[in-house]
Amino acid sequence: MILTATDFNDFAALAPLALVKEIEEALTRMPLPIKDSDQAGKQGQLIFDPKGANEAIKVALKKCGWQSPIPLPVGWQTLGLAVDFGKEGVLVEAQFSNYPFLLNNVMRANVLFNETIPLPPMGPAKTLIVISKAKLFPSANSTLYYEQALEHLKFLDKGKSLQLPTRLIGLTAKRGQVIPAIYTHYHTPRYSRRVVTQEVVKVLVGNHNRVREREPIILV
Amino acid sequence: MILTATDFNDFAALAPLALVKEIEEALTRMPLPIKDSDQAGKQGQLIFDPKGANEAIKVALKKCGWQSPIPLPVGWQTLGLAVDFGKEGVLVEAQFSNYPFLLNNVMRANVLFNETIPLPPMGPAKTLIVISKAKLFPSANSTLYYEQALEHLKFLDKGKSLQLPTRLIGLTAKRGQVIPAIYTHYHTPRYSRRVVTQEVVKVLVGNHNRVREREPIILV
Repeated sequence: MILTATDFNDFAALAPLALVKEIEEALTRMPLPIKDSDQAGKQGQLIFDPKGANEAIKVALKKCGWQSPIPLPVGWQTLGLAVDFGKEGVLVEAQFSNYPFLLNNVMRANVLFNETIPLPPMGPAKTLIVISKAKLFPSANSTLYYEQALEHLKFLDKGKSLQLPTRLIGLTAKRGQVIPAIYTHYHTPRYSRRVVTQEVVKVLVGNHNRVREREPIILV
Repeated sequence: MILTATDFNDFAALAPLALVKEIEEALTRMPLPIKDSDQAGKQGQLIFDPKGANEAIKVALKKCGWQSPIPLPVGWQTLGLAVDFGKEGVLVEAQFSNYPFLLNNVMRANVLFNETIPLPPMGPAKTLIVISKAKLFPSANSTLYYEQALEHLKFLDKGKSLQLPTRLIGLTAKRGQVIPAIYTHYHTPRYSRRVVTQEVVKVLVGNHNRVREREPIILV
């Protein structure tokens, strides 16, 4: 997929370049994860597949030695038990779920950073990467998208409420370009994690002639 | 109702005592708001009524000259369009909804405070009061309760992520004591705001003999 990114608190200068490259190469190589929607008014549409994305990111990062999950120590589990991924002080959260989870993930990491809490085996968090999807992909209602996450992080940062060096990455695509996708068919489309079949397909995300805020994903 | 409270960042020294008293007197005079549950496994039970609570607080505070809502200026609406109540620099959020809204409300107010954003007509936020309900009341699933809110605020504060002087208030009750309640019957129990009837009743919240984490609300 194509990546877009915005940095906060001097992330580029503070995060080890080799580790950032591992993440960005894994995401660039990832085909667009898609599934059928079952939400009212979206039946029959292809949408971004959060479970497929999480799984693909997990497989790719574990191959490069990223730990997943990073369990949080007792006394620091108030906003959740674990962070998605970590390696040598770099935390990674893949966040394709409902938008309030962004604040939860980011404030949790900010607290761990400010207090330099050791996170065995990798040590304290020094930087955070948040992976999100762009708004142009059709998606389940109320799920976080890059442009929204960007506004939330800018708001926190502007109001001196984010000290952690953070890179927000958005997974996106060029309109009208044929790209590879992984089309997963689940046992029940909305809630099941049970994969029935998975196909490698080619899709178009919108086209050049008519630019919409959200583009349909079209099998080609 | 009976109040419990915890302060952060020197709230008691910084908030005007007369305004805090207005809030606390209004909450103390408020009968316990209750309604029928319709959630699976909770049918037939009386639960805390968030809509009833919000409405009762609104009526009481408007009488003392609190503005509601406090609209946020353009450019500061990223985490929502308005704060519930405000007067002379004191913001108030009544939060009985799903727990992630606490972080949203508190971080939003923290940003407004750190940036001293003018909030007409009352001026910049100087302190925040968050009103929540205690865990002992039966409630809709995943709704915020005082003990949980307290852990979240302590976590943020410990991690230098909350600068705003804040008082967290919990609405609670004494076990086994008969108290007044407002029992509201809605058009459909879960989603409707349309009130069908409202009764003043007396209830017991649990009893002295057996102390449980959550106590049933019993009509007497």
